[in-house]
Amino acid sequence: MPKYTVQFLPDNIELTVTGEDSILRAITKANIPLNASCGGKGTCKRCKVLVKKGKVKSPAGSEQEKGYLLACRCYPESDLIVEIPEESRLTEHQVALDGGLHLDGNGFGNEDTSVYREVSLKIAAPGPNSTESDMSRLVGAIRAETGIEHLRPTLDMLRALPRALRQAGGEVTVFLAEDRENNSVEIAGVEPGSMVNKYYGLALDLGTTTVVVHLIDLGERRVVDARGAYNKQAMYGDDVITRIIYADEYPDGLEKLREAAVSTINGLIGDLAQGWEIEPEDIKAAVCAGNTTMIHLFLGLTPTNIRLEPYTPVANIIPPVRASQAGLDIHPQAWVRCVPGVASYVGGDVTAGVLACGMALSDELVLFVDIGTNGEMALGNREWLVSCACSAGPAFEGGGIRHGMRAMRGAIEQVTIEPGSLEVKYATVSAAPPVGICGSGLIDCIARLYKAGVINRGGNFIVDAGSPRIRSFAEGKEFVLVWAGETGSFTDITISEAEVKNLLRSKAAIYAGIRSMLKMVGLPFDAVDRVVVAGGFGRHINIRDAINIGMLPDMPLEKYTYIGNSSVKGAGMVLLSRRARDLAGEIAGKMTYIELSTGNTFMEEFVSALFVPHTDLGLFPSCATSAK
Amino acid sequence: MPKYTVQFLPDNIELTVTGEDSILRAITKANIPLNASCGGKGTCKRCKVLVKKGKVKSPAGSEQEKGYLLACRCYPESDLIVEIPEESRLTEHQVALDGGLHLDGNGFGNEDTSVYREVSLKIAAPGPNSTESDMSRLVGAIRAETGIEHLRPTLDMLRALPRALRQAGGEVTVFLAEDRENNSVEIAGVEPGSMVNKYYGLALDLGTTTVVVHLIDLGERRVVDARGAYNKQAMYGDDVITRIIYADEYPDGLEKLREAAVSTINGLIGDLAQGWEIEPEDIKAAVCAGNTTMIHLFLGLTPTNIRLEPYTPVANIIPPVRASQAGLDIHPQAWVRCVPGVASYVGGDVTAGVLACGMALSDELVLFVDIGTNGEMALGNREWLVSCACSAGPAFEGGGIRHGMRAMRGAIEQVTIEPGSLEVKYATVSAAPPVGICGSGLIDCIARLYKAGVINRGGNFIVDAGSPRIRSFAEGKEFVLVWAGETGSFTDITISEAEVKNLLRSKAAIYAGIRSMLKMVGLPFDAVDRVVVAGGFGRHINIRDAINIGMLPDMPLEKYTYIGNSSVKGAGMVLLSRRARDLAGEIAGKMTYIELSTGNTFMEEFVSALFVPHTDLGLFPSCATSAK
Repeated sequence: MPKYTVQFLPDNIELTVTGEDSILRAITKANIPLNASCGGKGTCKRCKVLVKKGKVKSPAGSEQEKGYLLACRCYPESDLIVEIPEESRLTEHQVALDGGLHLDGNGFGNEDTSVYREVSLKIAAPGPNSTESDMSRLVGAIRAETGIEHLRPTLDMLRALPRALRQAGGEVTVFLAEDRENNSVEIAGVEPGSMVNKYYGLALDLGTTTVVVHLIDLGERRVVDARGAYNKQAMYGDDVITRIIYADEYPDGLEKLREAAVSTINGLIGDLAQGWEIEPEDIKAAVCAGNTTMIHLFLGLTPTNIRLEPYTPVANIIPPVRASQAGLDIHPQAWVRCVPGVASYVGGDVTAGVLACGMALSDELVLFVDIGTNGEMALGNREWLVSCACSAGPAFEGGGIRHGMRAMRGAIEQVTIEPGSLEVKYATVSAAPPVGICGSGLIDCIARLYKAGVINRGGNFIVDAGSPRIRSFAEGKEFVLVWAGETGSFTDITISEAEVKNLLRSKAAIYAGIRSMLKMVGLPFDAVDRVVVAGGFGRHINIRDAINIGMLPDMPLEKYTYIGNSSVKGAGMVLLSRRARDLAGEIAGKMTYIELSTGNTFMEEFVSALFVPHTDLGLFPSCATSAK
Repeated sequence: MPKYTVQFLPDNIELTVTGEDSILRAITKANIPLNASCGGKGTCKRCKVLVKKGKVKSPAGSEQEKGYLLACRCYPESDLIVEIPEESRLTEHQVALDGGLHLDGNGFGNEDTSVYREVSLKIAAPGPNSTESDMSRLVGAIRAETGIEHLRPTLDMLRALPRALRQAGGEVTVFLAEDRENNSVEIAGVEPGSMVNKYYGLALDLGTTTVVVHLIDLGERRVVDARGAYNKQAMYGDDVITRIIYADEYPDGLEKLREAAVSTINGLIGDLAQGWEIEPEDIKAAVCAGNTTMIHLFLGLTPTNIRLEPYTPVANIIPPVRASQAGLDIHPQAWVRCVPGVASYVGGDVTAGVLACGMALSDELVLFVDIGTNGEMALGNREWLVSCACSAGPAFEGGGIRHGMRAMRGAIEQVTIEPGSLEVKYATVSAAPPVGICGSGLIDCIARLYKAGVINRGGNFIVDAGSPRIRSFAEGKEFVLVWAGETGSFTDITISEAEVKNLLRSKAAIYAGIRSMLKMVGLPFDAVDRVVVAGGFGRHINIRDAINIGMLPDMPLEKYTYIGNSSVKGAGMVLLSRRARDLAGEIAGKMTYIELSTGNTFMEEFVSALFVPHTDLGLFPSCATSAK
């Protein structure tokens, strides 16, 4: 097979590919983060590149404006020079940090212990007739300082111990790593002298569509920075079912999915490490929260039976594995733990969310709604917990929405549309020129398009609105939110009728899930004291708009809290707090899973919820009078 | 540096060496087991080879009979063809199996559990609405079958689990490996169907001079075979102190010693695996007993402080490590455990011996004497235990004795010398032509030379005995035990005056150790109910002769038992029995170490014991009248 050299500009990265590698695949290989949310199917039209030199093969009619081609659709036929424009890139991976972990707020104080910590000790020299070993003196000193009963040295630590003990007059720093559920701690290392190095941990949210990593300073117990990226697994399918099928159908399918997840995470780790000038070896622990399928794929566990009745995962509780085994580019001996899950469709991300929102310790009845590619919800208080899940699709994370995007620089996060003039006002992340719309902006869009009379309750465009912003294109009708002149890109930012309907399906699934769960436990909306909304929409969401479109139930606004990515927050708590680790185990152990696909309840609710706000307006009394 | 090709005959192994590699080193690299007990110092004169073609550099006067050269003394100056004669080889590594492990004799029955076992189970399919994971059903079934509370899956097991569970209708075989002191068991693997494979464990005695490996069928709970070899570390010194100094003095000294130990063991494992046609991967666990220094060197732990006051080891209790970490050629994930030790000079070999002889469960007062390069002894019963150690030197294992050898094919194991005629009668292992003398033969030798009047009480030769068997050679006087014509070698088998004195120093150290220990605890010989003698002498030793030379105290013969290599036996018990594992921990925990070098007691006793049988004949009343 012929091989070609492709040079990417302006990165100036060169690599060799075959004629069977699409330019998108080549870009992925070159580890250049690209905006390709449809996973290379040619539908999202975001992976635009400019071929500056050389010949490519691409389907007729697939050319974009100004000579740009879709990287996913074209294949090299000669050596190439390819320019990747700024707007095709996932340039700013920074994730807004919305207020840290609030450990104290949930009763997890600073006296609590991280999964990994470094402790400085002074160890007395052996007495003249002592037969005590170095190890025995070390264990005694650690026990006296920490109260830990079961201490287990690693061979590497033992190899370093005699010199470390004698180099600084008995002053040593020991590295303590909790490696499992029971109260056993590994003495992972020892160094002479008092602690000087900083050491870090990672909290990971491994989502179907997006992956978010928090870099946490374990010594100072604070989040240093965060990064997010689209999950590279999207190349193999948008949702968990498609990916499970991919893993089943190809002999190396599971391995490819595993590699994609690991490579996504490692890309983020690399960014963080470079940005903060820390060595990957200084990252000493990681806690990963994700849905059950994601955790299976991440660890290379066969996901087959997750999609087959009775939906059996390999494991919900997974023992910690070494970073080297998981393939993470951090300290190879670091323990990587996964937050325990409940069932095939309620994973560690839900456990983490329930942990992060504090409902498991609450006297009030709390409804927790985590809106991602899977919509997952939990209901309960300190005494009982139920949970369920439904497939919402990746629309609110930008998946399948041409100008959808994650909540990063230039993402439209708030929208208002003036009824009559259809004048659009918007706010973007970092007040940058708009390049797309994130989840919170999309909720506003639907609410405001409806309010302005651009769409009807079924999401159909009302054409006689008579504005140049409403126009037809090859694939139907669309509304222009931002004209090209104002954008940070070279095209208008639009939302199409098909996309509106896609978003309505997502919101309908979420509402149907909530209502089905309440029905199944026999409680009315009124019984709920507090609603916690989580998800990757952005920094804020407009709850009023979310109610107005019928995504969230019509309850008093003061009952609502939005906590953003609760999965990564819960993972961070597990990383930092022994009490949180215990509690996560308890939550996963006691949360009852409700299967929504049994019976007709969910499907009936879903169909009724496909409208703005709902077929039954009686469920949304406040919508008639609401205003922002 | 010039490189030369050396071909070894009759093995027909070829390798490339530099002019700085002695032929002995080349032979070691070629992994041909050679008789070189002095470790390449040119003193034992056993590593004779015949240079068939090519040029070597060797010191003048170092040629041996019939053109043979010492491999350790000559260096290539051209490409070579070298023949290694049969008598220079450690050809038969077989170790006499003296009656197995007697697990039952110590109350360790067959219901007891090995460190590793494979259990077949039938696991029910999940119910229609079950949310149970594969792992949770597996754990439930293992618990029901075995009662084990803490079960921990490995990632590899989880990866194999879903397929294994479904391939044979829920019938699986699980691999259970105890990995540590507390009651935690690793689920190391799972296979569909009922158990078919055999699986093995290794019991290892890692001695300063010799290494012995027992291959144990863990399913059938029996010793299959045994192999022994000289420890390749001998190249770096005869005793632990010399080796510690070597490890300290050279930057890669510790690593070289570690490699030598590991390579010795792997050589034996390779022999066993080949001989029994088993895959190294089928060996799933190993238990190693050795003195504290040997265990340090085997695991690459700095031994420096073992020889410096107050004689501090890195650790006496070492957590299990993976075979891959230890470098053993068995299943890479197999756990290798070391029998816990007590102090720098009372290691896991003593714990294993005390375990094997049953004294820790005995109502009677037992004296345990393990005679190796270090003489180690323990005294006690089920209520208390004390131990001490002294350096005896490798003489009784053949070290420093020109015709000394391990108890293998052709070793003279029994000797009688007719007073007057000085006629010698002997018995050899496997009744083969004699090639050297093993420990039990050496004891007889001294006893009978004294009785026949060849040597006096100080070990000096009495020249006027008037027999051609007594003759002078360059380095002094010697006694011819076997004339060349009768031997399996090309030389006479002799014992020299210097060697007799060397053996007397060894026996004196042992006797002095025993007497010092008894003195220090304030007990007379009479208080001892039973004496258990252990060591690598051979299959039997003549206790009467051992008393006659003053090595063992003059107590009624019926109090004595000889149990051979108690270290490898104890290691085997630890491998096979949970109760033995617990007991080994208890023994190491409660045994009080007595330092013999404190005060003058030991040195005074040693000097008094340098004679046959002792300066104080009152201590050996039976010797005046004894006869075989």
